Amino acid sequence: MKFISLLTTSLFLLFCSCSSLQPSARQVQSKTLIKMALNDQTGYKIIESLTTEIGPRLAGSAQEKRARSWAVAKMKRIGLQTVRVESFDVSHWERVSEDVHILSPNPQKLRATALGGSVGTNHSGVSAKVVSFKNFEALAKAPLKGLENTIVFVDEPMTRTKDGSGYGVAVVKRRRTTVEAAKRGAVAALIRSVGTDHHRFPHTGQTGYEKGVKKIPIAALSAPDADQLARSLKKGSVKIFLKIRVKSKGSLKSGNVIGEIPGQTDKFVVAGAHLDSWDLGTGAVDDGAGVGIVLGAAKTIVKQNLRPKHTIRIILFGSEEVGLVGAKAYAKKHKAELPKHIVASESDFGAGKIWKLDTRFSDSSLSEAKSLFKVLKPLGIKRGNNKAYGGPDLIPMRDLGVPVVTLKQNGWDYFDLHHTEDDTFDKIKPEDIAQNVAAYSAYLWMSSNTESDFRN
Amino acid sequence: MKFISLLTTSLFLLFCSCSSLQPSARQVQSKTLIKMALNDQTGYKIIESLTTEIGPRLAGSAQEKRARSWAVAKMKRIGLQTVRVESFDVSHWERVSEDVHILSPNPQKLRATALGGSVGTNHSGVSAKVVSFKNFEALAKAPLKGLENTIVFVDEPMTRTKDGSGYGVAVVKRRRTTVEAAKRGAVAALIRSVGTDHHRFPHTGQTGYEKGVKKIPIAALSAPDADQLARSLKKGSVKIFLKIRVKSKGSLKSGNVIGEIPGQTDKFVVAGAHLDSWDLGTGAVDDGAGVGIVLGAAKTIVKQNLRPKHTIRIILFGSEEVGLVGAKAYAKKHKAELPKHIVASESDFGAGKIWKLDTRFSDSSLSEAKSLFKVLKPLGIKRGNNKAYGGPDLIPMRDLGVPVVTLKQNGWDYFDLHHTEDDTFDKIKPEDIAQNVAAYSAYLWMSSNTESDFRN
Repeated sequence: MKFISLLTTSLFLLFCSCSSLQPSARQVQSKTLIKMALNDQTGYKIIESLTTEIGPRLAGSAQEKRARSWAVAKMKRIGLQTVRVESFDVSHWERVSEDVHILSPNPQKLRATALGGSVGTNHSGVSAKVVSFKNFEALAKAPLKGLENTIVFVDEPMTRTKDGSGYGVAVVKRRRTTVEAAKRGAVAALIRSVGTDHHRFPHTGQTGYEKGVKKIPIAALSAPDADQLARSLKKGSVKIFLKIRVKSKGSLKSGNVIGEIPGQTDKFVVAGAHLDSWDLGTGAVDDGAGVGIVLGAAKTIVKQNLRPKHTIRIILFGSEEVGLVGAKAYAKKHKAELPKHIVASESDFGAGKIWKLDTRFSDSSLSEAKSLFKVLKPLGIKRGNNKAYGGPDLIPMRDLGVPVVTLKQNGWDYFDLHHTEDDTFDKIKPEDIAQNVAAYSAYLWMSSNTESDFRN
Repeated sequence: MKFISLLTTSLFLLFCSCSSLQPSARQVQSKTLIKMALNDQTGYKIIESLTTEIGPRLAGSAQEKRARSWAVAKMKRIGLQTVRVESFDVSHWERVSEDVHILSPNPQKLRATALGGSVGTNHSGVSAKVVSFKNFEALAKAPLKGLENTIVFVDEPMTRTKDGSGYGVAVVKRRRTTVEAAKRGAVAALIRSVGTDHHRFPHTGQTGYEKGVKKIPIAALSAPDADQLARSLKKGSVKIFLKIRVKSKGSLKSGNVIGEIPGQTDKFVVAGAHLDSWDLGTGAVDDGAGVGIVLGAAKTIVKQNLRPKHTIRIILFGSEEVGLVGAKAYAKKHKAELPKHIVASESDFGAGKIWKLDTRFSDSSLSEAKSLFKVLKPLGIKRGNNKAYGGPDLIPMRDLGVPVVTLKQNGWDYFDLHHTEDDTFDKIKPEDIAQNVAAYSAYLWMSSNTESDFRN
């Protein structure tokens, strides 16, 4: 027995040694998947279908419901199994109208959009003098008196970066200006849009309120309009009229759409994207692209008739934009199952090429990251760090211990379109989507055939 | 006496001979003006002032009136003389609201703008099936039956060029779609915007009607919306709702604003631009730029304390956009004086650098074109043809025999912004404006000190 055992051990070590020199079966298969994906427009066509046949799909809306039906049908056509909708409730909020204009000294309309979740004004709107702050910090540090009955304007620009690192700071302004302005007696607030473009598109996005602080309405100005207001303020006092009408009552149904390529164990690897979009554009880069990428990757694998070791689970989250509502619902519902989630990744950073692989694995699993990187490298992808963010909808499960991967896209132009009317299908480049689909299919195949647990 | 006469003639010929080899005084002075203008932001600051302090200035509106007061004050501050407003009437038209959306199969809002002069729908709007034509010609050739109670959509793109040559064809579509659609029983019309961008900005502009043909409402879709409609139509039948509200009743006051640098003869050289803009943007490239350029050029000359031989007349035309109303009023009012207009040029093709000089002079005056070209050449300006267009507001006087010059700007990007909301000050580059101001000051100085009459 001892001899046999020794022989087995030797053969095993020999195999391991070879496998580190020669590509494993999953690596060879991943290369085939990449080749297929790069020569295919599957992902691109899915984005076209979603953005054209559905269009905008605000959280909880009839359009988001239509998108769920679309997703169920698309997943079934691709050949995914156990396709289902997991429903949850989301607070009702919808835009009715905005009217923001300068009353004096230079009467003119300003292009503005109410931020998501903003309260409305009353029917007659508000008229007030504008007080400008160069950034959110300056407002937060301002004396608590002196802004009574004014409209506060936070004129903070956002920095353009490849990795989206300018977004964090900018989002604080979007979420907290209402609170700091209201504490000081302002009747409404305006911000320079969280965005990097210089077109007349205001960027929407979720705002926030604080218990015990009066809720005041807030709108974002497009960059040219913020410039116009800033120039006008340099010349003297400016009075603005602002009227925002919104509907917001009770809750609506939303849901996550899930489909799988069944494996042979009870474990999962996850690729996600979100199905909802803001109401202004057709949600092409945010996040039609992600939907096309993860469904495209799943289709690439199914077409190869490959059966993974672990189940590949595709999750199209609902109501991401309004506070990760679908992501939280998923983590709650699947809490007991999360330890069986080997790894998760979400595509939600636009439609640019992937240029970096970040992971969040245990130290002892870093060889898995290395293997994955080896497969992805020919796609022009660099090895990043081991502190991966994963994606917004992964936060709740990441916080509960699920290892994540970020296939980091080039976000240089992402915040030109993000949350604007201009987020439409024509901005999508098929070759960039094909590269993403290739990377996701390789990620899914490598991870779904791992022997490791990236936690330990 | 004979001897003296001979001596005079000889000296005169000697002078002429020298002057063809050595730069004349006006050439030397023009070079100084160019140098001054290139190191100055006068034109740029004027554009900033107009677009910020006034903003949009639709023909006949209160804003256009404010712009006339602004122009009078600005001309006086520059040091122009005989500054006055020459009033005329313009038909009232203003936009109230547009609502265009797909009813079925994929309900969503489309970004559309009513064309200038369009009639409105009734209060309940119209709902109808869309019939698409690939271009205007296809519509014009369609049978006279078969489009009853439809919405006609002309999906004709515009070609991007440096010289704006794609505009002519595109404008036919804008002006005539209503007529050809109405002849065939359509209830409304949509066109793909006359523009070259791919943002969600519909381009407005004047439409037309024909006596005896029913007036139907017309709107332009932004390029991404035209794409969306085209893709939807490829998938099946599309029903659209369209509601346009406009105000249009009687006539309003408009006017041309004129200021001069007085000369020593009763003749004039003219530099023009138009003061009105469409209502959507702040009219920065169309035609705040032109206003800044010609006023900047006048200021450059005044600052040099130079007195021209012939009077330099700056004309800021009113109501250009709605049918050259100010231009026609000027030509009518000044008809008797037009033979004394030596030459005219208008800056109304955006804010790009001038790259070409076209003239429309008599053959015997081509040496004047040559002299002017010699001065402009260091600005990177090529010699063009002798069939100059001059500019839209010059058409009525050109048709009555006034020689014209085109200082042709690079219009590659012009139709990205033209007649859209996005035509705002941030699109203006100070260095390009300075080059234009330099060229206009040289043109004005050379022409206002000519001995020639460019007609003969």
